[in-house]
Amino acid sequence: MKFNVYLSGEIHTDWREQIIQGCKELELNIEFSSAVTNHEDSDAAGDILGDEEQSFWRDHKSAKINAIRIKTLIESCDLAIIRFGDKYKQWNAAFDAGYCAALNKPYITLHDEKIIHPLKEVDANAQAWATTVEQVIEILKYTKG
Amino acid sequence: MKFNVYLSGEIHTDWREQIIQGCKELELNIEFSSAVTNHEDSDAAGDILGDEEQSFWRDHKSAKINAIRIKTLIESCDLAIIRFGDKYKQWNAAFDAGYCAALNKPYITLHDEKIIHPLKEVDANAQAWATTVEQVIEILKYTKG
Amino acid sequence: MKFNVYLSGEIHTDWREQIIQGCKELELNIEFSSAVTNHEDSDAAGDILGDEEQSFWRDHKSAKINAIRIKTLIESCDLAIIRFGDKYKQWNAAFDAGYCAALNKPYITLHDEKIIHPLKEVDANAQAWATTVEQVIEILKYTKG
Amino acid sequence: MKFNVYLSGEIHTDWREQIIQGCKELELNIEFSSAVTNHEDSDAAGDILGDEEQSFWRDHKSAKINAIRIKTLIESCDLAIIRFGDKYKQWNAAFDAGYCAALNKPYITLHDEKIIHPLKEVDANAQAWATTVEQVIEILKYTKG
Amino acid sequence: MKFNVYLSGEIHTDWREQIIQGCKELELNIEFSSAVTNHEDSDAAGDILGDEEQSFWRDHKSAKINAIRIKTLIESCDLAIIRFGDKYKQWNAAFDAGYCAALNKPYITLHDEKIIHPLKEVDANAQAWATTVEQVIEILKYTKG
Amino acid sequence: MKFNVYLSGEIHTDWREQIIQGCKELELNIEFSSAVTNHEDSDAAGDILGDEEQSFWRDHKSAKINAIRIKTLIESCDLAIIRFGDKYKQWNAAFDAGYCAALNKPYITLHDEKIIHPLKEVDANAQAWATTVEQVIEILKYTKG
Amino acid sequence: MKFNVYLSGEIHTDWREQIIQGCKELELNIEFSSAVTNHEDSDAAGDILGDEEQSFWRDHKSAKINAIRIKTLIESCDLAIIRFGDKYKQWNAAFDAGYCAALNKPYITLHDEKIIHPLKEVDANAQAWATTVEQVIEILKYTKG
Amino acid sequence: MKFNVYLSGEIHTDWREQIIQGCKELELNIEFSSAVTNHEDSDAAGDILGDEEQSFWRDHKSAKINAIRIKTLIESCDLAIIRFGDKYKQWNAAFDAGYCAALNKPYITLHDEKIIHPLKEVDANAQAWATTVEQVIEILKYTKG
Repeated sequence: MKFNVYLSGEIHTDWREQIIQGCKELELNIEFSSAVTNHEDSDAAGDILGDEEQSFWRDHKSAKINAIRIKTLIESCDLAIIRFGDKYKQWNAAFDAGYCAALNKPYITLHDEKIIHPLKEVDANAQAWATTVEQVIEILKYTKG
Repeated sequence: MKFNVYLSGEIHTDWREQIIQGCKELELNIEFSSAVTNHEDSDAAGDILGDEEQSFWRDHKSAKINAIRIKTLIESCDLAIIRFGDKYKQWNAAFDAGYCAALNKPYITLHDEKIIHPLKEVDANAQAWATTVEQVIEILKYTKG
Repeated sequence: MKFNVYLSGEIHTDWREQIIQGCKELELNIEFSSAVTNHEDSDAAGDILGDEEQSFWRDHKSAKINAIRIKTLIESCDLAIIRFGDKYKQWNAAFDAGYCAALNKPYITLHDEKIIHPLKEVDANAQAWATTVEQVIEILKYTKG
Repeated sequence: MKFNVYLSGEIHTDWREQIIQGCKELELNIEFSSAVTNHEDSDAAGDILGDEEQSFWRDHKSAKINAIRIKTLIESCDLAIIRFGDKYKQWNAAFDAGYCAALNKPYITLHDEKIIHPLKEVDANAQAWATTVEQVIEILKYTKG
Repeated sequence: MKFNVYLSGEIHTDWREQIIQGCKELELNIEFSSAVTNHEDSDAAGDILGDEEQSFWRDHKSAKINAIRIKTLIESCDLAIIRFGDKYKQWNAAFDAGYCAALNKPYITLHDEKIIHPLKEVDANAQAWATTVEQVIEILKYTKG
Repeated sequence: MKFNVYLSGEIHTDWREQIIQGCKELELNIEFSSAVTNHEDSDAAGDILGDEEQSFWRDHKSAKINAIRIKTLIESCDLAIIRFGDKYKQWNAAFDAGYCAALNKPYITLHDEKIIHPLKEVDANAQAWATTVEQVIEILKYTKG
Repeated sequence: MKFNVYLSGEIHTDWREQIIQGCKELELNIEFSSAVTNHEDSDAAGDILGDEEQSFWRDHKSAKINAIRIKTLIESCDLAIIRFGDKYKQWNAAFDAGYCAALNKPYITLHDEKIIHPLKEVDANAQAWATTVEQVIEILKYTKG
Repeated sequence: MKFNVYLSGEIHTDWREQIIQGCKELELNIEFSSAVTNHEDSDAAGDILGDEEQSFWRDHKSAKINAIRIKTLIESCDLAIIRFGDKYKQWNAAFDAGYCAALNKPYITLHDEKIIHPLKEVDANAQAWATTVEQVIEILKYTKG
């Protein structure tokens, strides 16, 4: 059983690398994928198509180009891990969760206890809520057991 | 053409009532629906099934009961209006947007210019971004024209 | 919001009538439906097409005729209530739950605490687990609020 | 034609190993998969995420983690073999059958004659009802012929 | 429960009228529909768009115009009754059966015992095989009970 | 059988009114719908949300607002009539045809003989190609017969 | 572009071998598949599960076991070739055609001119009607060009 | 992440070769596909099945044979690039865009600024509008980054 896991959400800590490294050490047969996680590159994706004066349209073009990759990866993954960090609105992470839920695609959330309440709808559709990277790795190990 | 419109998001201002009232005055043939918008009722929905000591499980039960209504209404609506206000995380609104996007269901976002950037993925899948209730009513009037 | 609720499972107590009566008293706009709940009629449904010597084929024919009704009702309902009682195997109730889960159709389970463990997979996909008819009525009242 | 077969149900006898071994001897090009079949591991899957005082929530967390694997395997299999044994409620096996039926995914049941009647709805949607492991192997051999 | 039943197949006997009349007498709440059953009208449907010299194209145009109605009716029915008579190839009836099967739409076949063997694949996907109009009416009565 | 027909394409002649009038005279039970067919209104739909300096974004906003209506109507129609006239590119009409084809939704094309060749892919997926409004009315009459 | 082609229908002539051989000589990258085409084996498939006194149930069991293979192959093919010969009812071939049509899966029919009329509904949904094996090979060569 | 890109539209310039060559130089792991782009071959595809006197039927047969390939490639691609040139109606390109939109499949349009207005509905559903081949290559490079 080959397994595709999409890593969505927070881009300011190294949680992705920790999960990938942890699974590598366990020699789990998992292919990980993500959106472009370099913040500036991601914001500037639309500039390929020419500059925009209005920030709305610049963001619009970038978000749509990023979506080509995100959409394809979410639809072909077997499981998504969706990380909510301490800062920023992270509405794109919640958006990805809703997208997964509508497709009946399983996902695990990864976040601190203090944001349980605002994430209750997102967690209600998740297969699991983890608070540490180690727990996520354990679940992946168990699932691939 | 009968039209079902689901109103998602912020529950602390009267934007829902304004839209409903505005459409009523224009005699538009639209049926509006929403989740339960009373904050305490919504948080306590799960208490019907007994108390929980851990807040995670209380939230979990409430969110799942609320989802019965939300899911049915989103899947049967023709259009969703998704409102992001000034306060709170409002991840459930972004979750609803992602859910709509995966179902190929059209939605309009309603939010201020200052949160354009964090909402870019949500707006990229929207049919329109409105900043005022009047604009939403205009779009509904035009669509029902 | 008109609401269709399918009542699945145990046929040896009057839980269906209690729910229907309770909702009627609250004047909730809900249409309830069920499989044929008369045990002998249900077992004999296939006899319309001629007798069978082997019990397997008699059961087969009856189950398939019953499925015409069950399938149509489950696919058109907004919510299923699935009841597990004290006796019998009730595999058809668990089958209905799986059918709902695959269709992303919300359901509530109704059963005693003592069968939590064998029902864990069924409950894991449910929107709620209720132990009394009153709780189910409360949830319906809340959902229709 | 590569063939993926999911083995669902009873975990207290070695029927899985017998089928796998039998197909191996026939050199059939089939990949078999299952849920985690170690009973204690399966029940404890949720403990990865912390202990629970209430058995309902422990079961809930474990069932949802197990579902990550089960769901992926059922949705990607070409055929499921669903085994009902002599003991226990085995509602998860009937749940898997309903899940397959709704997805229009073929399955074969494997059970004794004495439980024909309670399994009639499950059998009515099956492609075949087998009573012995040898019959299942024969069907797989024929299908792969 | 309103019920839509599509009547497919043989057009040379009055089996449709018998079923409709029988259900009317029983006051069953069923709406029946069919393709255009006048043989010449059906064959000539394409002539609306101009004559064709080649019979293949005449048939082609007629079959496609007829399909507008057939397709809409099959997709919106709850159940199809598919009748195979003594004469003609009746491939369109078997085509309708396959169409229903792929959509997971229940159907009942109505045919004599002597054509069991060539219809085995069609019957294998049916919910029931009836040999008389009376049996069909009985099943409808039971289903609507 | 109530029938919903969506009228797509050319907005510079009165073909829509002719079809609607013709069916009215025949008392056919058909509900017709269209996009907003006033050219200026349609182009200006996005102005509700504020002016744009760049014509691309003005068009973009208008097209997306128009799509709310078009999408809902196409997805709920039983049949589309797609008209290609003598002038303009009419890529939106071909787009609607492709949208119908992917949804397995039947459509009829209405156009002159001289544009057969460039429309061959569009016609290849159509249920019928008509050259006059009278033919379309005849087909509707036949289908509703 | 790897291409999967399912060969359905007549089993009494060697049209399958001719197509496979012709494509092999042209070195086309195509994987062909079929149901079990040995008539006696196919009819006896259900005997694996024990004998039946009634021919209906023997046929039923065989047809359902055969369907495991047919269903999987049709759903995973890119194109089906459906052959109608001179003899027998061949309802299973028309059934396969309807199944393909509902799944929006392309198919080519292969049959003589003299059965155009009874096959008009089947041909109306086909991508092509061929009368010779050579034409089918030419189409495959062109498609893979 | 392997990526399949379908190239649709204009066949009179070498834009396909430029994109393929550009991605090859960047060593991007992309598999490109197209319809048959030789104009005469494409128009003559149906001649395999015999000549037609009426140009409509010749076109019809060719378009349907071409569709076997196009349909399979669009449904299996991750992204389509749809090119509109200066000449001809190019309704097939707009048809492909509509087909993608209904399947929720991402596409990029490639066309000059002067045809923005007639393409507004097509662009409104696109993930990006590019004016040069270089921009398309940049987006692919970014997406595969």
